[in-house]
Amino acid sequence: MLVLLKPGTPEATANDVMTRLRMAGLAVHRTDHEGRARIAAIGDLGGISADEVAHWPGVESTEKLARPFKLASRAFHPHDTIISVGRANVGAKAITIMAGPCSVEGEAQAFTIAAAVAKAGATVMRGGAYKPRTSPYAFQGLGEEGLKILRRAADANGLAVVSEVMDSQQVPLLARYADILQIGARNMQNYALLREVGQTQKPVLLKRGLSSTIEEWLLSAEHVMAQGNQRVMLCERGIRTFETYTRNTLDLNAVPVVKELSHLPVIVDPSHGVGIRNKVAPMARAAIAAGADGLIIEVHHDPDRALSDGAQSLYPEQFDELVAQIRTIAEVVGRTV
Amino acid sequence: MLVLLKPGTPEATANDVMTRLRMAGLAVHRTDHEGRARIAAIGDLGGISADEVAHWPGVESTEKLARPFKLASRAFHPHDTIISVGRANVGAKAITIMAGPCSVEGEAQAFTIAAAVAKAGATVMRGGAYKPRTSPYAFQGLGEEGLKILRRAADANGLAVVSEVMDSQQVPLLARYADILQIGARNMQNYALLREVGQTQKPVLLKRGLSSTIEEWLLSAEHVMAQGNQRVMLCERGIRTFETYTRNTLDLNAVPVVKELSHLPVIVDPSHGVGIRNKVAPMARAAIAAGADGLIIEVHHDPDRALSDGAQSLYPEQFDELVAQIRTIAEVVGRTV
Amino acid sequence: MLVLLKPGTPEATANDVMTRLRMAGLAVHRTDHEGRARIAAIGDLGGISADEVAHWPGVESTEKLARPFKLASRAFHPHDTIISVGRANVGAKAITIMAGPCSVEGEAQAFTIAAAVAKAGATVMRGGAYKPRTSPYAFQGLGEEGLKILRRAADANGLAVVSEVMDSQQVPLLARYADILQIGARNMQNYALLREVGQTQKPVLLKRGLSSTIEEWLLSAEHVMAQGNQRVMLCERGIRTFETYTRNTLDLNAVPVVKELSHLPVIVDPSHGVGIRNKVAPMARAAIAAGADGLIIEVHHDPDRALSDGAQSLYPEQFDELVAQIRTIAEVVGRTV
Amino acid sequence: MLVLLKPGTPEATANDVMTRLRMAGLAVHRTDHEGRARIAAIGDLGGISADEVAHWPGVESTEKLARPFKLASRAFHPHDTIISVGRANVGAKAITIMAGPCSVEGEAQAFTIAAAVAKAGATVMRGGAYKPRTSPYAFQGLGEEGLKILRRAADANGLAVVSEVMDSQQVPLLARYADILQIGARNMQNYALLREVGQTQKPVLLKRGLSSTIEEWLLSAEHVMAQGNQRVMLCERGIRTFETYTRNTLDLNAVPVVKELSHLPVIVDPSHGVGIRNKVAPMARAAIAAGADGLIIEVHHDPDRALSDGAQSLYPEQFDELVAQIRTIAEVVGRTV
Repeated sequence: MLVLLKPGTPEATANDVMTRLRMAGLAVHRTDHEGRARIAAIGDLGGISADEVAHWPGVESTEKLARPFKLASRAFHPHDTIISVGRANVGAKAITIMAGPCSVEGEAQAFTIAAAVAKAGATVMRGGAYKPRTSPYAFQGLGEEGLKILRRAADANGLAVVSEVMDSQQVPLLARYADILQIGARNMQNYALLREVGQTQKPVLLKRGLSSTIEEWLLSAEHVMAQGNQRVMLCERGIRTFETYTRNTLDLNAVPVVKELSHLPVIVDPSHGVGIRNKVAPMARAAIAAGADGLIIEVHHDPDRALSDGAQSLYPEQFDELVAQIRTIAEVVGRTV
Repeated sequence: MLVLLKPGTPEATANDVMTRLRMAGLAVHRTDHEGRARIAAIGDLGGISADEVAHWPGVESTEKLARPFKLASRAFHPHDTIISVGRANVGAKAITIMAGPCSVEGEAQAFTIAAAVAKAGATVMRGGAYKPRTSPYAFQGLGEEGLKILRRAADANGLAVVSEVMDSQQVPLLARYADILQIGARNMQNYALLREVGQTQKPVLLKRGLSSTIEEWLLSAEHVMAQGNQRVMLCERGIRTFETYTRNTLDLNAVPVVKELSHLPVIVDPSHGVGIRNKVAPMARAAIAAGADGLIIEVHHDPDRALSDGAQSLYPEQFDELVAQIRTIAEVVGRTV
Repeated sequence: MLVLLKPGTPEATANDVMTRLRMAGLAVHRTDHEGRARIAAIGDLGGISADEVAHWPGVESTEKLARPFKLASRAFHPHDTIISVGRANVGAKAITIMAGPCSVEGEAQAFTIAAAVAKAGATVMRGGAYKPRTSPYAFQGLGEEGLKILRRAADANGLAVVSEVMDSQQVPLLARYADILQIGARNMQNYALLREVGQTQKPVLLKRGLSSTIEEWLLSAEHVMAQGNQRVMLCERGIRTFETYTRNTLDLNAVPVVKELSHLPVIVDPSHGVGIRNKVAPMARAAIAAGADGLIIEVHHDPDRALSDGAQSLYPEQFDELVAQIRTIAEVVGRTV
Repeated sequence: MLVLLKPGTPEATANDVMTRLRMAGLAVHRTDHEGRARIAAIGDLGGISADEVAHWPGVESTEKLARPFKLASRAFHPHDTIISVGRANVGAKAITIMAGPCSVEGEAQAFTIAAAVAKAGATVMRGGAYKPRTSPYAFQGLGEEGLKILRRAADANGLAVVSEVMDSQQVPLLARYADILQIGARNMQNYALLREVGQTQKPVLLKRGLSSTIEEWLLSAEHVMAQGNQRVMLCERGIRTFETYTRNTLDLNAVPVVKELSHLPVIVDPSHGVGIRNKVAPMARAAIAAGADGLIIEVHHDPDRALSDGAQSLYPEQFDELVAQIRTIAEVVGRTV
């Protein structure tokens, strides 16, 4: 149930409403929009009716939240969520660019790439220390050592850090080094992990599962938000279809759809989405033209020797050129870089 | 087999080579690129070897065409194909915009929309007179009467006409009224129809089937081209995936992929691709940013009363605004509108 | 609208009802079930109301046909349709087995295989004379010569003939030689072709399109039936999914689903469904266990030299053994072979 | 690399081979087949060549393991794996039937259903205590209390217990109550969880992910097996396709495919696969006809009041009848129930 308070309702009255809803066994979340409090009261409405609540002091009206996702919906939270992390304000007018290698491979590699992407305009550095690999026999990442390198390389270049957390037990470790906790596509419905990151206050980058509908993706965001952490960025990274020419099918349709359904920022990952270097820039440009709030792109100065995903990593010069193009397209859609 | 002639080979020698290849039972197609003739010789090479041909007078080298599509491939025809029709040069630097109603519904409707789209910058008018409908009980189009109206409305506004042909028997009729013969997604592998349009000299707009791989799509273009008609435009219009929020999943990844594999122009149809009015403009912008050569868009001045596809048709004002945005994005990718 | 007449309504009254419905502009189809006439009246109900019709003489009740397919639905035609052709009664208690080569390649091949499959228990011979091929350069079938051979081979062994018709112009030719007109998966939504076969009285084997939903498939059957030809058999032959190990994903779920929604017989084609010889028999057994009315199976005595689909054709001995297994499974589900 | 020892090689020699392989940095796994040891040596072969190893004492030959899954492949382990748990021998001649409610809801429910399924022929009881739910607001299971009830209900009826473990931290708890640890479809690529169950000696039921290829599924089994736990059962439970009539598309093609690629037993879950009660029995029958080693089926005595998945649960009488049908089909494929 969504409870709209009257404009100018005193805080004490607002608090009363929230207390009474909690006493009815409901989880209560509040947002303020255009001078009015909006309260989402979630749970079994058995003991209380929306009609009844509509007559409480301070309440202007109540309505049912029709979609299964509540906190993630625009109905509850009409204005765009902006998530500030380092120099980035994800979801604000300026497009956020995250870039870096697929995996952290060593000090020299990380510092070289960090410097290059910072210079080109990125504000967040990506890099994997724990890699989810289809085969148990493939390179699994440098682990904590990789996180330390990533942190130092990012700090030296004024960048925030995003890195993947693969298991609920790993959350404290990742939270120590990273500014944004990435949930990978394979773990989009790992609910124990979602719960755990929901209990931190770290921003979360939630990748869409390979065969997840948009509704399931928003419900996974809801799993995080229901724990109290509202700072979720959604990341489209390609879905699985019958087409085999590209590694995945980057679903840019999801960008305008999610922007309408939800207030959460949407980041696009064209590197995993298409998996072929010379297709990354066209799809990155397209993502911004479609209304994405940011990009996350794999960049490597020596991709032929990369330990993972070399074939889809941009060279630093290609990344430079791409950011310049993005700048012009951003203006067309009322954004900046 | 691809046969490259030496620069400056006399025409008589070139003709000899082609005649000998034909006598060996091969279909022979020629294109000229950077001052040199390239000859595709297609068929069972049983009686002739590539090594042997490489020693013929005038022949510089021979190679196997590795992909199953030959005439549609860049290997045979390295430069972009440009198809001129009316004022449009599809595949040239200027983006081609095709627009109009889903179905022709009557004189007033067609003239109103034709005037609006011509004024906004379209050079080709779309409109269905024969509609492929999933249900036998739905509106099937106005038939020949619709074609006549479409022709008059387009002529009055200096537009070329594209309209769908649904059956091999209908080709002469459509060819009488339309400048571009559209093959719909459901008929992408109707080989009798492909053969028939391949025997006309009308440009063909070949929509991608709902579950067709890019290779199958190019092979359907090859069915047309093998009959002698090289003027094929490919049209991406959404593929079928598990996602149900959008009508289809517009696959923009296909744009850079096809541009690399083939010399044929690529048009994007965001109207059918997403099927929701307010998602059409973002995906149209994205298509141009991804490198498409043109757009085909449904526009209707009174979509609530449209006999088909009203929910995805743009209002003329929305179309105006979209064309203006496309103009700026086109510049970023080195194009114009 | 479905109009149920009272038991024992005189024919003259029934005819009056049908005439009045026709005069209201509706298409009228009748079936008799448990001693009562059921009339489907299809079209724009603008000038007539179901309530009004319910009071006409002889009418017991009226109801809306909720699903978009009418004639194909169990609501209109509650009992199973049985289609008799040659010695086969497709849809009756006895499972129908259709078998033969992918393509007719010559007299010896066709007679050898016809004899083998007839002996094993098949009553219908399959064989392509016109082949839909993804590439224009692949073997396209023997054409009319192939049809003549097929007819003779089948006749010599007491078999009926099923063969594919690829274009509306080809229907008279195919109807001359074949007992069952096959519509291939690529043509499932070739509406001109569906209309044309709907105007013959030949039974139709309608293959499911590679990415067609069950509803679309039944609507394609409806396209045939709306022309007056009620003798449609549905053929599941695999859908396109992300899985690439098998050629297609044979969707046996469709069998019980279609049997509930529709009265039309369902045939399963495991040869195209999986595309790998040693997987054909398990899936054929599974199809019968799931409730299919029949099988259509590729059999070739020398598959390594087959001009098409050799890799999925059974050897005659494998086919023999399969029919024996099918016999026992048929009993479990109350059928015979 | 696969190392085949000569028949009759003394154990001491075999141990020498294994030690030398381990010293070269390889992980070593051994199986015995037809009187001969087969050793899989997995890892970076940098310091050692297959040719060299082929000349070691006791070694008959060496070969590369071509597929990315090694321990799960038939190349390494040619004979069927049989996993004994309680009265069940999963993978042996007798079909294993697992049945029970979707979720454990209470003592009475669990005991009623346990008694019914045991009487009908099940040897393993299924039941969820921790439920992965798309929405954070849906019933999440009874937790440890549910596990206790499940254990008691199973014990009272001589059944083994299979129940889902959702997180690496939960493994010890589940291992205390369940005989088989189920990995759900959403967690098929939760590698931390796979590693953790791989370090127990409990049999694992590994469900196929909704959009996982067969190769990815076998590689997830490999993640478990590489930790030392070879007792993995694969469970096909439906894939995600475009078809929306059924909840998922149960992919029975996977059964013969996996049985050829791997020695692991394959269980089919028709309840989740189709999600509609009256389609469960046909698909269960089809699964056995296709060669599955067992079934896992949801049974509920009062499905209308079930807290989850009621619409797909069989009534006990339906389950009885199904087991009887399975018995006859099993014979056709050389199995028993």
